[in-house]
Amino acid sequence: MELLKNTLSLIEPLNKEAMDKAQAHLDDLTKPPGSLGTLEKLAKRLAGIKGEVPSHLLRKTHILMAGDHGVVSEGVSAFPQEVTPQMVLNFINGGAAINVLARHAGTELILVDIGVASELPELPGLINKKIAMGTKNLAKGMAMTREQAITALEVGIEVASEKIDSGAEVLGIGEMGIGNTTPSTCILAAFSGIPVEKITGRGTGVDDKRLELKIKAIKQGLEVNKPNKEDPIDVLMKVGGFEIAGMAGVILAGAAKRVPVIIDGFISGAAALVATRLAPLAKEYILASHLSEEPGHAVLLELMGLEPMLTMQMRLGEGTGAALAMNLVDAAIKIYYEMATFSQAGVSGAEDN
Amino acid sequence: MELLKNTLSLIEPLNKEAMDKAQAHLDDLTKPPGSLGTLEKLAKRLAGIKGEVPSHLLRKTHILMAGDHGVVSEGVSAFPQEVTPQMVLNFINGGAAINVLARHAGTELILVDIGVASELPELPGLINKKIAMGTKNLAKGMAMTREQAITALEVGIEVASEKIDSGAEVLGIGEMGIGNTTPSTCILAAFSGIPVEKITGRGTGVDDKRLELKIKAIKQGLEVNKPNKEDPIDVLMKVGGFEIAGMAGVILAGAAKRVPVIIDGFISGAAALVATRLAPLAKEYILASHLSEEPGHAVLLELMGLEPMLTMQMRLGEGTGAALAMNLVDAAIKIYYEMATFSQAGVSGAEDN
Repeated sequence: MELLKNTLSLIEPLNKEAMDKAQAHLDDLTKPPGSLGTLEKLAKRLAGIKGEVPSHLLRKTHILMAGDHGVVSEGVSAFPQEVTPQMVLNFINGGAAINVLARHAGTELILVDIGVASELPELPGLINKKIAMGTKNLAKGMAMTREQAITALEVGIEVASEKIDSGAEVLGIGEMGIGNTTPSTCILAAFSGIPVEKITGRGTGVDDKRLELKIKAIKQGLEVNKPNKEDPIDVLMKVGGFEIAGMAGVILAGAAKRVPVIIDGFISGAAALVATRLAPLAKEYILASHLSEEPGHAVLLELMGLEPMLTMQMRLGEGTGAALAMNLVDAAIKIYYEMATFSQAGVSGAEDN
Repeated sequence: MELLKNTLSLIEPLNKEAMDKAQAHLDDLTKPPGSLGTLEKLAKRLAGIKGEVPSHLLRKTHILMAGDHGVVSEGVSAFPQEVTPQMVLNFINGGAAINVLARHAGTELILVDIGVASELPELPGLINKKIAMGTKNLAKGMAMTREQAITALEVGIEVASEKIDSGAEVLGIGEMGIGNTTPSTCILAAFSGIPVEKITGRGTGVDDKRLELKIKAIKQGLEVNKPNKEDPIDVLMKVGGFEIAGMAGVILAGAAKRVPVIIDGFISGAAALVATRLAPLAKEYILASHLSEEPGHAVLLELMGLEPMLTMQMRLGEGTGAALAMNLVDAAIKIYYEMATFSQAGVSGAEDN
């Protein structure tokens, strides 16, 4: 609890002066003001986070949290729970989508077992922070205890802080956990009050029958647990998941240590919602990567006032969208430092702006 | 005319068999089927274009066409016409946004003067294909002659063919031309019949007064010229532009030589519309990069059935969005070849798919 409290107390607003300075330089580059849109906004945000636009490409670390969910016994997923540990091995062996895209982005990939429901062997590259063998079935009662929720948040803070202290300058997050769109939808419903049907999607691709079971489980979870949206940890412990809590912790650590965190799709978005309810200022440190196919994702992003950069119709998770967005952060830095100004290039400005 | 005719006659459908084979492999990779969305579609499309998914990253060339527009005398742009040649020099010197983003993407950048309204010195890296000192004022009459329109299309075909013959495996396109959202809007209005007010935007950022002048000039251009939408060259010559025709030629050459062409924003989208009206099959060779801020762009893409990958709120042109999308094409190829299959990784499939 001490670590969480301290972390929350360290989160401060962006550096407004640095952002104004960055804006002035951006407006002096040979392009109509604002015409590079999100690339300019990224550069400006980096200035606000770091105190100036970094003059080198950021050192990248992607943190992937894996956990299981008791609610799978309600039949909410098309894939069996054994896929979670199987995919952890796939990550270790470098064969999953996130491995390919992290390599493509030049990003270090960190794997954390925060609650996989099976014993995993000691593996090179796997950080064992297992809190329990998966959450309990949220449709029947609390997914975890309050202590477990805080521990999971602090696992995220610890892992992220360690990476930041050893040089990571931008973080990506992602997850693996069969069934985890179900707790994510519960979290969104709990905070937003939006009817469950409107924000429940097919996750990795369930059929109509399972979609019905999923909606039923989500509604039952909210009914049985009555999460209190004024207390984000209450929501997290009752209808959340270990990997979701862990990712929320990563975001809080990034915000506290002034490192931007690139979120992925729906599940990391639910983590971001928890983090921003715990610390509203954390929002400024979050970069939204892509708009996923999960119907609740657009709602989530809008609720936080975040705008995605990619529309790739993806719904895989693991942080695959976050990894793709790393390249855009690099591009923003290069635009800031490599473009000529109007006076350098001898280009006329607008006549009436 | 012969070159254009021959090029159109060479455009064939995608290789369906190769696409089915690619799909089967994609469905065998360790992810829910289709969950990588556009990355999977890109890989499949490359298979359809090239006969198989290329087993190496594609050699990239970006073709930037510069031209001027007589319609600027109607006061449709915030920037003076002298900016077109000034920006050409900026491109040559490497200081513009497209230089930065082409370097970032590992893309060769080719510059073509197809109709800049001033004499440019001979410059290393600048291809002189000037057809005229800018188009005529389309609000008063035809922007160019039919012969000029065909020549401009053939310039695009020639430049692209030369690059493809010397090894380019994917092309990006972009443009520079003060005032060129005006002819682009005319082209979209001519083909779609949508009211001009609905699809006219602020281009590089005009104020309300200029927006009114722009709408007036576009309406007048359509009224005076009465472009015949059944004859794409008629539309192009009456209300188009040299760089728009040149980019349409690049697309046609790509389609004829089975090389994908990544389009940029609104203006290259108008070029794509002309190209696909001349050869409907060309659509299959076009990759849409980003959704620009120009209001007509979404309409244009929908009209062609193309889906953008990036939503970066950009409105700069030059091909900046196309350059950013190159990284996503690379990612698609890596996904196809570097991910493990379910059997390789020992991962269970879906239970009911």
